[in-house]
Amino acid sequence: MKKVRVGLIGFGTIGSGVVEVLKRRRSELAAKAGVDIELARVCDKDLRSARPVKVAKALLTKDFGRVLYDPSIDIVVELIGGIRPAKEIITEAIRQGKHVVTANKALLSEAGDELFSLADKCGVAIGYEASVGGGIPIIGSLREGLLANRLDLIYGIINGTSNYILTKMRDEKISLKEALAAATREGYAEKNPLLDTSGMDSAHKLAILAHLGFGIAVKPREISTEGILDIELADIQYAEELGYAVKLLAIAKRSGDMLELRVHPTLISEGHLLANVKDVYNAIFIKGDLVGEQLFYGEGAGRLPTASAVTSDIVAIGQKIVRGQRDASWGFVKTVKGIAEADTIKVRHYIRFSAIDKPGVLKSIAGVLARRGVSIASVTQKEERRQGIVPIVMMTHRAEERAMALAMREIAAFRSMKRPPVRIRIED
Amino acid sequence: MKKVRVGLIGFGTIGSGVVEVLKRRRSELAAKAGVDIELARVCDKDLRSARPVKVAKALLTKDFGRVLYDPSIDIVVELIGGIRPAKEIITEAIRQGKHVVTANKALLSEAGDELFSLADKCGVAIGYEASVGGGIPIIGSLREGLLANRLDLIYGIINGTSNYILTKMRDEKISLKEALAAATREGYAEKNPLLDTSGMDSAHKLAILAHLGFGIAVKPREISTEGILDIELADIQYAEELGYAVKLLAIAKRSGDMLELRVHPTLISEGHLLANVKDVYNAIFIKGDLVGEQLFYGEGAGRLPTASAVTSDIVAIGQKIVRGQRDASWGFVKTVKGIAEADTIKVRHYIRFSAIDKPGVLKSIAGVLARRGVSIASVTQKEERRQGIVPIVMMTHRAEERAMALAMREIAAFRSMKRPPVRIRIED
Repeated sequence: MKKVRVGLIGFGTIGSGVVEVLKRRRSELAAKAGVDIELARVCDKDLRSARPVKVAKALLTKDFGRVLYDPSIDIVVELIGGIRPAKEIITEAIRQGKHVVTANKALLSEAGDELFSLADKCGVAIGYEASVGGGIPIIGSLREGLLANRLDLIYGIINGTSNYILTKMRDEKISLKEALAAATREGYAEKNPLLDTSGMDSAHKLAILAHLGFGIAVKPREISTEGILDIELADIQYAEELGYAVKLLAIAKRSGDMLELRVHPTLISEGHLLANVKDVYNAIFIKGDLVGEQLFYGEGAGRLPTASAVTSDIVAIGQKIVRGQRDASWGFVKTVKGIAEADTIKVRHYIRFSAIDKPGVLKSIAGVLARRGVSIASVTQKEERRQGIVPIVMMTHRAEERAMALAMREIAAFRSMKRPPVRIRIED
Repeated sequence: MKKVRVGLIGFGTIGSGVVEVLKRRRSELAAKAGVDIELARVCDKDLRSARPVKVAKALLTKDFGRVLYDPSIDIVVELIGGIRPAKEIITEAIRQGKHVVTANKALLSEAGDELFSLADKCGVAIGYEASVGGGIPIIGSLREGLLANRLDLIYGIINGTSNYILTKMRDEKISLKEALAAATREGYAEKNPLLDTSGMDSAHKLAILAHLGFGIAVKPREISTEGILDIELADIQYAEELGYAVKLLAIAKRSGDMLELRVHPTLISEGHLLANVKDVYNAIFIKGDLVGEQLFYGEGAGRLPTASAVTSDIVAIGQKIVRGQRDASWGFVKTVKGIAEADTIKVRHYIRFSAIDKPGVLKSIAGVLARRGVSIASVTQKEERRQGIVPIVMMTHRAEERAMALAMREIAAFRSMKRPPVRIRIED
């Protein structure tokens, strides 16, 4: 059986998972796919730390040149993450005629377009199943199984840490701070959890999904992004009373000719499958014009799920190599004209005002909203009050982002408002 | 761009969907996948009936020989269903060196092993994404995205008609008969709905999934199969009170070295994602040793979802053809020794007895169960009674199938039993 040689750069958590899977499953993979995957080189700047898997000393190196410039290596697996030096490594690997497999969502969302073009020109493939949704085969499904569809919608719960925090807050009735501490204790949150809680990690992944699903290359900074840091337990509980769960959603939604792209905490009806995605699980919900609604659910991170995805890419590319296939490119077909302006997007809103309990406050709030053209669907003035502050919870009808933002600013300036209003978008 | 020529046999509902998709998406598919898919021939014994899509007269034929023996045709798409003459057509197509795409679950579950071997020998591929789960890319995901996993479990809600009936019974509190009538009115049930309601359709699909997921070739008749025809509204409602939904599940479950394979109505905890799969939707829940739990959800049938799956196979095979790949086989790797004997399978049970309301009945039931080694987890004697009959609902601990069957037979023979006990298995 023909061999395909793999050079791995980045021998951290995921890297060690990939090494383990390639060793443990070598004969089964060969039997299934007709290609023998050989681990030819493992590169990391730190070769001293203990790993849960053993690699022959002769394969280890600190010099990634020994991967990039080894003509016997067919596939370079990049698992160091971040932009530098990952971008240089991948670029050089492609120039050397090597196929690339990567889990690097930050890099692909920032420079995917450029790297895919280069790979195309050089006749090599980039596998990136592991960049979104961990072990969930969402990239393969969008590229292959669903390729005949014109997508209308992608909703993603694609940041496990945020989903864990929101689940924990709701289930244990604890504050965001306490839930974040629990996530850190459980090893789900990074030392600096801001990439997760700010929504930025979701934006990276959304950029990748939107590129694949709608053919539009977009940088993460072009995606209107809001994290979960302003979510309070009270909002989760009020939402629950109204029949909604609060989830951090990454949204790509066709709107006329344009594509809405946004990441924000979102009220989702309890009846929706996404509302039942708990803990660190991820889920991607899509709507295609042929298949209708689909959901893909699974662990969105972790050593072995991610290694599963990386391995599937290695094998798929390996099959192409041994079968003499020259080209493995995938054409991105643009099905929207561009990205909708964030200001013009219309959604329903949940709003919580924290007002001093005195007559006329509700009237003033309603007055501003009416003037801005924001129509109210329901109002609940909560009985509980602390230090004379009354929570007022409103659900609005669809209102334009610009109008909502202006109304919120105006109301926040009321002397009776003790804290800025909390606003969470709704998707039905 | 290189062309790949497709001959379609079976111009019914799905066939017309495939024609529509290939026409509507031709340029987009070409741009994405680098292959131009040309519809070269459409064959059906009935060319008179109106179809929702037009095909040039020159392409139409009643003679499938004009597909099979046309050397310019690369891929034969078989959409007539059933065993004969589909098997002969596919066999001959393969012998003629043509690749095959099919949605034929009855045929693949009966003769998949034989057809895959022949295809392997002849160096052609068989695409069968559409055979299970309609537009859900579950075949591709098991073959590619998840191939590094050793699977432990597949749970499938893979018969939309049955799921519609069970959903309707629960939501509208109607009998099975009424729900079946509704399914027929909505066009979800065939004229003879027995293939669906008997569980046989699910068994066909389970055989295909088990072959792919556990490498074991099994005939549908080797799968212990029970349909939904004995389910009563009362059971759905009692299950609901106990926190369970009733679903027709297709189950492939590793148990030691062996594989449990069974199709039956099942109590699933309300908290499980599968409990929330409603109406005609399908879902496949898997557990892999690397990825953990995953769920794939979507429309499991219908003209365009199925056409989406067929098209994805056509394109994938087309890519291999134009890129000069010779072989596209997939090796089935057996990860279990064989199929577990149905009699030895241990699960928990829900049982409903319909007994005459007189002292000592419960004691006699409990006596039989105890003698057979079936341990009771909970008992509820329902207050309602009709014509002096009292429903007694029991949940058991895990008990062996053989013991349960014997106990049920024994209890059914009691003079106080007005009807045979209803028994539904539980999966937790």
